[in-house]
Amino acid sequence: MRLSELAALVGGRLEGAAPPDAEITGVSSLHDALPGDVSFLANPKYAKQLASTKATAVLVREDCALPPPEAGGALLRVESPDLAFAKAVPLFTKPAIVRAPGIHPSAVVDPTAKLGRDVYVGPLAVIGPGAVVGDRCVIEAHAVVADEAVLGEECHLYPMVSIRERCRLGNRVTIHNGTVIGADGFGYNTKVGPDGIRVEKIPQLGNVEIGDDVEIGANAAIDRARFGSTVIGPHTKIDNLVQIAHNVRTGPYCGIVAQVGIAGSTHLGTGVMIWGQAGLAGHLEIGDRVEILAHAGVAGDLKEPGSYLGSPAVTKREAIRQFHVPRAVENLKADVAALKAQLKSLEDKLAQEGK
Amino acid sequence: MRLSELAALVGGRLEGAAPPDAEITGVSSLHDALPGDVSFLANPKYAKQLASTKATAVLVREDCALPPPEAGGALLRVESPDLAFAKAVPLFTKPAIVRAPGIHPSAVVDPTAKLGRDVYVGPLAVIGPGAVVGDRCVIEAHAVVADEAVLGEECHLYPMVSIRERCRLGNRVTIHNGTVIGADGFGYNTKVGPDGIRVEKIPQLGNVEIGDDVEIGANAAIDRARFGSTVIGPHTKIDNLVQIAHNVRTGPYCGIVAQVGIAGSTHLGTGVMIWGQAGLAGHLEIGDRVEILAHAGVAGDLKEPGSYLGSPAVTKREAIRQFHVPRAVENLKADVAALKAQLKSLEDKLAQEGK
Amino acid sequence: MRLSELAALVGGRLEGAAPPDAEITGVSSLHDALPGDVSFLANPKYAKQLASTKATAVLVREDCALPPPEAGGALLRVESPDLAFAKAVPLFTKPAIVRAPGIHPSAVVDPTAKLGRDVYVGPLAVIGPGAVVGDRCVIEAHAVVADEAVLGEECHLYPMVSIRERCRLGNRVTIHNGTVIGADGFGYNTKVGPDGIRVEKIPQLGNVEIGDDVEIGANAAIDRARFGSTVIGPHTKIDNLVQIAHNVRTGPYCGIVAQVGIAGSTHLGTGVMIWGQAGLAGHLEIGDRVEILAHAGVAGDLKEPGSYLGSPAVTKREAIRQFHVPRAVENLKADVAALKAQLKSLEDKLAQEGK
Repeated sequence: MRLSELAALVGGRLEGAAPPDAEITGVSSLHDALPGDVSFLANPKYAKQLASTKATAVLVREDCALPPPEAGGALLRVESPDLAFAKAVPLFTKPAIVRAPGIHPSAVVDPTAKLGRDVYVGPLAVIGPGAVVGDRCVIEAHAVVADEAVLGEECHLYPMVSIRERCRLGNRVTIHNGTVIGADGFGYNTKVGPDGIRVEKIPQLGNVEIGDDVEIGANAAIDRARFGSTVIGPHTKIDNLVQIAHNVRTGPYCGIVAQVGIAGSTHLGTGVMIWGQAGLAGHLEIGDRVEILAHAGVAGDLKEPGSYLGSPAVTKREAIRQFHVPRAVENLKADVAALKAQLKSLEDKLAQEGK
Repeated sequence: MRLSELAALVGGRLEGAAPPDAEITGVSSLHDALPGDVSFLANPKYAKQLASTKATAVLVREDCALPPPEAGGALLRVESPDLAFAKAVPLFTKPAIVRAPGIHPSAVVDPTAKLGRDVYVGPLAVIGPGAVVGDRCVIEAHAVVADEAVLGEECHLYPMVSIRERCRLGNRVTIHNGTVIGADGFGYNTKVGPDGIRVEKIPQLGNVEIGDDVEIGANAAIDRARFGSTVIGPHTKIDNLVQIAHNVRTGPYCGIVAQVGIAGSTHLGTGVMIWGQAGLAGHLEIGDRVEILAHAGVAGDLKEPGSYLGSPAVTKREAIRQFHVPRAVENLKADVAALKAQLKSLEDKLAQEGK
Repeated sequence: MRLSELAALVGGRLEGAAPPDAEITGVSSLHDALPGDVSFLANPKYAKQLASTKATAVLVREDCALPPPEAGGALLRVESPDLAFAKAVPLFTKPAIVRAPGIHPSAVVDPTAKLGRDVYVGPLAVIGPGAVVGDRCVIEAHAVVADEAVLGEECHLYPMVSIRERCRLGNRVTIHNGTVIGADGFGYNTKVGPDGIRVEKIPQLGNVEIGDDVEIGANAAIDRARFGSTVIGPHTKIDNLVQIAHNVRTGPYCGIVAQVGIAGSTHLGTGVMIWGQAGLAGHLEIGDRVEILAHAGVAGDLKEPGSYLGSPAVTKREAIRQFHVPRAVENLKADVAALKAQLKSLEDKLAQEGK
């Protein structure tokens, strides 16, 4: 595809060195781009990358004052670089793999399981006794849907996903490889008696209920409730290696980034955003639109919208105050040393005068 | 079941608004309860939830001064709300799935493997050459017991569990989906020479030995030893996504909560409790009954029983001191400003008098 | 084997109490050794363990001044205890399991997949349509090589590994159980409009490319790129439960320890070392030979070689300064109290004189 053809396709205006008949052969980020690539600048934060990119063309906003790339690429001015790039990407990338409906002969589907219409069950997948799989679901190789679990329509389980017994998924739930839905919560009663320690398991008799349009990454773990349900609200998106303990409830539209851990019975409101590796203690209430920054450790309720960080997590304002403590201490040291000297010189002067 | 019948069953005394013939249809936590549910209050810490619960009845201690729920539920006074609730739960929840002994025809059991009596091997499970599986074990769908691994009696491997070659489990060991026992430890020798960097793998020739009555959550990883064994002591309970490196040894009765990481050759004593996301450096000695709080980073030995927190982890007493540092700095700023003013005014006064 | 025979084998000189004909039956670390074991001391840091070891013999350096073990073991003086120990280990440990080439009849190999020579495909493994597997690869039980994925020569996939569609591995890549290569990156556009919130998935159309001689531990997750490739450089070693987000690039010879998380589009130079549980924000540049210590949280570029720690991560020098802040504050409190007293006494004295 020629650069001019791409410009026409995305409704853009060319600016800069690259000729309109330059060939476009791929898409890439500014940083990784090679000659022949089209890239994009949506966030002005990354404008410094524009100078050094090797991209042949870069999609930028109409109204953004920017010099063309030094390597001789063109700017391609559009209303929304994000949307224009999304149009360009499929031209240069292979389409996603699509599974045609059908049950692979090596899959083990229990005769008491109920499969909807146009379901795909891949090689060596297992659908257990009493399980229900909705229309147009895709159950890939090696996924296991255990006894009496229920999937809505158009769910997609990638290989090695486990849906444990009696868990329930809504419609359009996508779960990536290796994630476990419904393992037992971590609950024990420990008694120290005269004849030693006794650790008794608290039975975990509930399940997990996942709302519509949820996506969950790879190797995450969402535990079944002690009783009742661990609940993931609709449209909530969960990244890889996240731990969600028993009886947690998330609201709708939450985002939970990789390696976050949420302890038992904590509740998230609507649109809560939790960044990577943050941890939340148990039995907390996190209010609507709260944002918890990466690596934070949350030990108490967070009811006001806003951003929280640190461990224990505090408001951004308080965190900035804490951040400046080492500098403030250096300043105080200097002030105290000056005061000491000043007082000493005053005392010396008075002593002299007293003579 | 009527409320009065439930009261009789748990030997409890009714108090408050709900009529004795109210129907009880489920169990739930105070927070999640709906009308028809019975709930419980074991820990006075959560007493504030009592006012707002919608539960029809709440199990509470005989001697606890509490107002009945505002929503009109009853209190059900019993000696132990925990035990009474444990009695009530099975009445309203489905029993756990039980696997009848038998080998699924799709399982791949090596002819040289030895299976005990009354073993269940699920669909597509793999038992490798020379492996030994004790009586009454349950090996679920897609679990892999590799070459020469040994399981005691009544172990339960959930789907997608890997027991690597030559690892050994005691009796009554339960492991949840996706957990890997016995992958290679992370060990390399790096040499920087005139012809560049060379990274050589240190062979990991040991195994993992797991004691009796251990339970391990989902997607955890316990690495095999460089030589000898990585050891998990009996009655130790490990949560999801925990990392235990090569040659770690835990004592008996330890509790290791989700996403904890323990680096190589660290030893835990008896009854050590490590809360979520804490990390321990390698080659440490952690004494009996030490408690490491969530999100802590432990960089040195902890020999005295007690609670430790922070990163680097310190005693609770020291942590509280550190916690108050920002406030102390604010106070010091005020003090120093006052001293400056005071000294200035003194100097001014003396200067005036000197005139 | 006799102790004298072992000494001859490793070319060492015996010193201390154990008789030359003492029997050696195993290898172990100093800490875990029992009578009959040979152990080694490579790092003088652990010399204190020498006194209490029960090992019958300990390999130590020629020139190291050390008393023999108190329990009566011998020192065995050698040039390199590391190398000598590496020679001794195979004498007392079983050799690693080796897979003879061949396709297990239960494996599901798509007819359009291409397998090289002398490949092993274990029970119930899946090789998808259009996948390419190089010579002498070992694909263990339950591993899945998805559509159009490409493996070089001598790769080793342990059970339950997922290689997602179109990902590419170089030669001699080893991946341990449960690790997922190429799940979708975490990317969504969220729009808050008058009719509510809309969350749209950003298609993840790229792949993962892994260089030669890479090893990856258990239950890790390396996400496919939004477009282009997530890249793991040659000779890089990655531990268990590590999260590597979309479009990350690591240089060659990096080491990434357990539970580390690296957010999207961050680039690592050559020989970067990241210790356990550290987290790196997205879009960062980490320079050659940077070392990030355990539990650190990296929020900005780190271009200078050196060690960084803390959250937000700072240089070691700055971290030590911060570490001493609580002590400095205590000192300041004392200084300020002394100044107050001194000033008060001066004012009192002047007031008296004024009388």
